[in-house]
Order: sequence, then C-alpha cells, then structure tokens
Amino acid sequence: MKQFCFSNDKIIESQNASIHPMDIGFIRGYGIFDFFRTSGYIPLFLTDYLDRFIRSAEKTHLNLEFSKVELAQIIHDLIQKNDLEQGGIRMMLSGGISDNHFSPTDGSLFIFCEDLDFPAASKYENGVKLLAADHVRAIADVKTTNYAFPVWHSVNWKKEGAEDVIYHHNGFISESSRSNIFVIKNGKTATPDQNILHGITRKRVMELDQNVEIRPISFSELLDADEVFMTATTKKILPVTMIDDQKIRDGKPGPKTIELMTAFAAMEKNSVLV
Amino acid sequence: MKQFCFSNDKIIESQNASIHPMDIGFIRGYGIFDFFRTSGYIPLFLTDYLDRFIRSAEKTHLNLEFSKVELAQIIHDLIQKNDLEQGGIRMMLSGGISDNHFSPTDGSLFIFCEDLDFPAASKYENGVKLLAADHVRAIADVKTTNYAFPVWHSVNWKKEGAEDVIYHHNGFISESSRSNIFVIKNGKTATPDQNILHGITRKRVMELDQNVEIRPISFSELLDADEVFMTATTKKILPVTMIDDQKIRDGKPGPKTIELMTAFAAMEKNSVLV
Repeated sequence: MKQFCFSNDKIIESQNASIHPMDIGFIRGYGIFDFFRTSGYIPLFLTDYLDRFIRSAEKTHLNLEFSKVELAQIIHDLIQKNDLEQGGIRMMLSGGISDNHFSPTDGSLFIFCEDLDFPAASKYENGVKLLAADHVRAIADVKTTNYAFPVWHSVNWKKEGAEDVIYHHNGFISESSRSNIFVIKNGKTATPDQNILHGITRKRVMELDQNVEIRPISFSELLDADEVFMTATTKKILPVTMIDDQKIRDGKPGPKTIELMTAFAAMEKNSVLV
Repeated sequence: MKQFCFSNDKIIESQNASIHPMDIGFIRGYGIFDFFRTSGYIPLFLTDYLDRFIRSAEKTHLNLEFSKVELAQIIHDLIQKNDLEQGGIRMMLSGGISDNHFSPTDGSLFIFCEDLDFPAASKYENGVKLLAADHVRAIADVKTTNYAFPVWHSVNWKKEGAEDVIYHHNGFISESSRSNIFVIKNGKTATPDQNILHGITRKRVMELDQNVEIRPISFSELLDADEVFMTATTKKILPVTMIDDQKIRDGKPGPKTIELMTAFAAMEKNSVLV
C-alpha cells in the first residue's frame, strides 16, 4: 500500500491506520468497499464508482458521513500526496462496533492507495482459464467485503493454471469472483444481469457495444460460445479461452473481443483527456 | 466488551486492540472465529470449541500459532483477569495483510470477553418466530466471519417480530443464521446435516436424544412438524413456534422440546462440576 491513507476523518500514514477488531467489519464481515484506478493521475470513471459506493452504503444501512463531492476531494488529495500516477484506490466503510456484535451501527471510512498490476501481456494475447464453481454471492448487487468463498477457492487456482472462477448455479452463470462475464455467439454479445455486481467496466463495454443482450445465460451456452471475456477495473477486458478443461471454440481470443479491447483503450485515453 | 483481551501475543486492554484495515480479515471478510461461554467461570465444552476453531483454521489455510493447550491457558487467564463468571468468549483469526490483497497469509489472533444475554424468559416459554430466507452460507461447515447476508436481513427482524431466519434452498432447510435447527414429528427428532455449521450445542442435543435422525429436511416438513427448536451457544435450546406467519402445530413449545431443555440444563450443571 502507498504511504498515505484516509482514516476516519483525516489523511495519515497508512501504516498507522487501524480498526478495532470488534468492529462488525471484521467479526461479521459487514462492510462495503469500492475500488478504482488512476490513469495519469486521473481517477478513471470516478463518478460511477462513487455513485456505486454511496448506493452500497444505503443498501446496507450504513451511514456515510461524506458527500460525493467531499469524497472526490479527499481522493484527489490522496492521489497528490501519494504521487499516484497509475494505481488502485480502495474505499471501505465498516459496520462499526455494535452493542450486540451483529447489528449495523456507525462505522469507519478508510481510503487506501495501492500499486496496481494488470495481468501479464501474455494473458491478454492468449486468454485465461476460469474454473467453474457453484456459488451465488449474497446481496450480489452490493459490493460487500464477503469474499470468504473465492479467497478459500483461490488457493487452488495457480496449480490448476486458472486466473479465477466462473460462478454458476442451477444451470446459469452469473459472474467471476471480482469480474463480470460476457459471451459472444454469431457476432452477438450477451451478459447476465442476475446475481451480479454491476461493474463499471461492464457498463463501459455496453456503451462500446450497444447491442449487448442482457439476459440469463446457461452454463452450456457459455461453453458453446464463440468468444468469452471478463471485465474488471483491474483487468479491463480480458479474453477467457478455457473453462475448466474445455476450450472456448479454438482456445484463442476472438476478433470481437480484440476489437472491444482496442475500443476500451481508446475510451480510457479519451476519459483521461477530458 | 470486557476490559482485557488477547491481541496477537499478549493480554492487553481491550480498548487498545487494533487490526490494520488492509488485513483481508476486513477487506475480504477472510477470517474465522468461534464463540463459547463461561458458566461459573468454567468455559463450557471448551475442547469442542477449540477443536472446531483449529479445524476452521486448517480448512481456510490459516496458520494458528498457538496449540490447543496454549489457547486454553490464555482463555483461563482472560477469564480470571476479566472476572468472567458468566459471559461470552470470542476467538478470531484474520487472514493477514496480503501482498495481492486477496490470498491468505499470516494473520492475527484475538480473544475478547463479552457480556452475554440469553433470550428473555418469555421466549423460552412461548417460543420464537423465524423468517424464511433463501440462502446457503458459503463454506458452511467452517465458522467464517461472512455474515453480510443475515446482518443485512436482520434490520427487518424486530418489526416482523422475528428472532432470526431459517435458511432454505431448493426446497430444503439448513440452519438459522447462528443456530442449528431440529424438528420433531410423531416423537422422532431430526436435524439436517448439509450446508450447516456443526454446532456444539447441536452435538450435545444428539447426546441427550440418541435417536436423532440426521437427514435432509424439506421446508414443508418443517412447517408440518409437531415441534421445532433451535440450538446455539447463546440460546441453548430455544423453541421455535412460528415460521413467517405460520404456526408450528398449536404455536406452543412442545413436550419433547421442554424435556430436552431440562436435560440440557442438567448437563450444563454437570459439566461445570467436572
């Protein structure tokens, strides 16, 4: 993590930040967060991320004591103090120290800046493998901190040669652990809308390809796709070429995915110029 | 919380305990815990709880630096320092500060002592209401800290007159948010075994009633039961007399539940004398 962070109500040295262990953010995993990145010191798509963070707080009955404008100001101050030309920014709001150790109360706000490594170039060139896992994230449309399942599952990813998981349940796919998923068949792009977090990169892709179908996608439709890709702040658009031991078509990134990757890079460049 | 706690490697004032907010115990909700109580200064069924805590650490790939004997010694020291005649003890192990902010690493151990209020006498006399919720806890046999769903759901419990939830999925019940569930029909007791945490009070009940059937239980079987009760460290055996707006039989605690409540009280008394 970078040298300075925002903790409760001021900017301090990151190493001195602390939260009480009895905060339900820790003992009950009751907290929300969001994560975005800077590109040339600009926090990319900041309004979208702040809107989502504020919405997550509202949906989880947590009191966020800072307005959107105040949060943006704190973030700009942190970017300057940490000289964060390219990096990640993590905002977190905890559930607080609760009398009954369960019910939400007034919590603490933290904002940390981090180094950010994108996947290796070879992964963008060759695509990645996802492991199928039967799982549904609880309160999936809220960016909660409950990642026990994928963190636990991730211990096997490296030895399986996998980048991440693809969640499915009752025959339908939803999302990866921290990414959205898109499938392309006969030139038409589709993405699921149920049991997912509504990603900001996902939203951008739907601006770049305005004909994306938003609908349930079965697991067999995933396997039968011409192209598959995942989207995330930390991955941009990343081709998926294998699910478990089964190749997607010929196991190579497809033309429409590559086209969207190029278009997204241009969009990022333009966003930074604005 | 009580005055003294164990934090990392020593007993300190509870108010001075802290964890770094970038610990994945907070940012990813990756941590385990366990909770037990003292009865007349004796930590009830301590061996069972320590065994489960150690098993939770192993299953989640977390490194617990203390042996069972060392943990028991720390707990006895804390009971003395906090004069904990009747109270709760919460052990927690975090996932640590991870380089990639995701993978488990070496975390921190905390042990806190708390006041413990059992449900009001009227709830034992009249039984309580549970709200049905379609949910399956991730890695259910491990006592992780991921309680985002029930904490979020609990905001409605009071106005619905409910004590807690009963989880069901695909037509079958599993557990309540922090309790196990038992049903009785025609004098036979049954409890589910899938997607549950294996409770210590549940284990004790199966010692008191050695004919408990361990098998899948459908939601309609729950509604059709003669008696229903829940078990938990903080509830002992608590009769359940209503699911949503439907009474269980006549809506009163049944004779076999009351018999088990009495037998459990005697067992607790004996455990303390040993």
